[in-house]
Amino acid sequence: MITRDIKIRVRYKETDAMGVVHHSNYVTYYETARTEMLREFGTTYRTLEESGVMLPVREVTMRFFVPARYDDLLTVRITLREMPGVKMIFDHEVLNEQGELVNTGTVVLVFMNAVTRRACRVPGWFAEIFRPCFPEG
Amino acid sequence: MITRDIKIRVRYKETDAMGVVHHSNYVTYYETARTEMLREFGTTYRTLEESGVMLPVREVTMRFFVPARYDDLLTVRITLREMPGVKMIFDHEVLNEQGELVNTGTVVLVFMNAVTRRACRVPGWFAEIFRPCFPEG
Amino acid sequence: MITRDIKIRVRYKETDAMGVVHHSNYVTYYETARTEMLREFGTTYRTLEESGVMLPVREVTMRFFVPARYDDLLTVRITLREMPGVKMIFDHEVLNEQGELVNTGTVVLVFMNAVTRRACRVPGWFAEIFRPCFPEG
Amino acid sequence: MITRDIKIRVRYKETDAMGVVHHSNYVTYYETARTEMLREFGTTYRTLEESGVMLPVREVTMRFFVPARYDDLLTVRITLREMPGVKMIFDHEVLNEQGELVNTGTVVLVFMNAVTRRACRVPGWFAEIFRPCFPEG
Repeated sequence: MITRDIKIRVRYKETDAMGVVHHSNYVTYYETARTEMLREFGTTYRTLEESGVMLPVREVTMRFFVPARYDDLLTVRITLREMPGVKMIFDHEVLNEQGELVNTGTVVLVFMNAVTRRACRVPGWFAEIFRPCFPEG
Repeated sequence: MITRDIKIRVRYKETDAMGVVHHSNYVTYYETARTEMLREFGTTYRTLEESGVMLPVREVTMRFFVPARYDDLLTVRITLREMPGVKMIFDHEVLNEQGELVNTGTVVLVFMNAVTRRACRVPGWFAEIFRPCFPEG
Repeated sequence: MITRDIKIRVRYKETDAMGVVHHSNYVTYYETARTEMLREFGTTYRTLEESGVMLPVREVTMRFFVPARYDDLLTVRITLREMPGVKMIFDHEVLNEQGELVNTGTVVLVFMNAVTRRACRVPGWFAEIFRPCFPEG
Repeated sequence: MITRDIKIRVRYKETDAMGVVHHSNYVTYYETARTEMLREFGTTYRTLEESGVMLPVREVTMRFFVPARYDDLLTVRITLREMPGVKMIFDHEVLNEQGELVNTGTVVLVFMNAVTRRACRVPGWFAEIFRPCFPEG
């Protein structure tokens, strides 16, 4: 299991007329956290795409607890529970500066050949990055 | 049970570098469909807010099947399965012009007093709008 | 000179914590108006892209007068003043339902070969669409 | 004159089907840079709003030179040329990691009383923050 904490500052643009972060933005926060988690592991999603493999989203689930507001410095705690295979599953907890749980969510992504646009397995070099964290896998 | 079909044209802004609609936009498509469904029933979400009641989102689940592209004319088939009580639950199917299933999703919203920001029951006048469609309720 | 009125309904997602439409959305409203104006002339921007020509934005100017709100039905009055050559220039006036001027803006786009990503002239077939409206050109 | 460099990482969500950052996002990048510039001066836009003064946008101009792509680490060089009075004017240069000029833009904002929603002068305490940088003003 891999967990990382990614900080995201709420932009004014992300608020809505209720005065809080519009719920659609959490999907983008998860995406930003994935990007930064991969970077911390020494690769990037851009590298994956340039190698001819994409990771489109197959499922999203989100639950909302406490609203976030403009300029809040959120922590997105992102967790990868299993070795990547044909898919990657990320869990997220979004916390505010008071440590309150703002939101939780899960995103399921599938590996896809960028040319054929068909599902494929995780590239070996990419899987190897996560191997040390899943010694049992 | 109430079902309505709402048409939404994909904007260029809603596409991403994979050449398809970015997954976060479906949350907004559901929201737009809710807005239009209420209008077809003779009220508006704006009227609800002006009466002092908000409907924040509590849960979202989405599944993605076929990508949508710029300028696609999508049909969001939105369904309300139960009389509003302390919450409203909407199911959505998004279809493209070929009738293929692009995406499905469910959104759970809760009634909230706009001043206290606490959960409340559906206002009577608002519930009455849907009563004829739920004779058993 | 060509002018068309395109209707756009403000989405909740487009509002911000000031309770009004966030200023960045007008750029997208202009884009939506361009898309619909082309459709009224019997072609689409998608057709242009599929023919191998893109129209990236080179300049945007916007002025804001009166705020727009959730669920407002805006009219984007879009005007093309000159025959397309190496660029297209669109002027926009955004009006609310009371006829008040909400916003004005100008967008300059340039024709670009999608493969080489270099500037090019307007394709002949595309220019011909607008010829009848510019008899002097 | 005050200049600060703010770093912004391009999100996947901000790209479009041309494979580059959609032009509307630069408006949000400018906003993010304003937020961070104020923080570096020891205050925040949130503090200004909480004091009862808003800063809505009155004008935006943007020019686009070189496209930005997913995961680019952009530098937004933001400049305030004059002491705030009834308005604040920010100039922006957006540079990529190769130092190329991606975009330039200017945003004019006006001070507004949050209750009356009428234009007002800059609050004294807020103006004082910038005074040391404009000794002539």
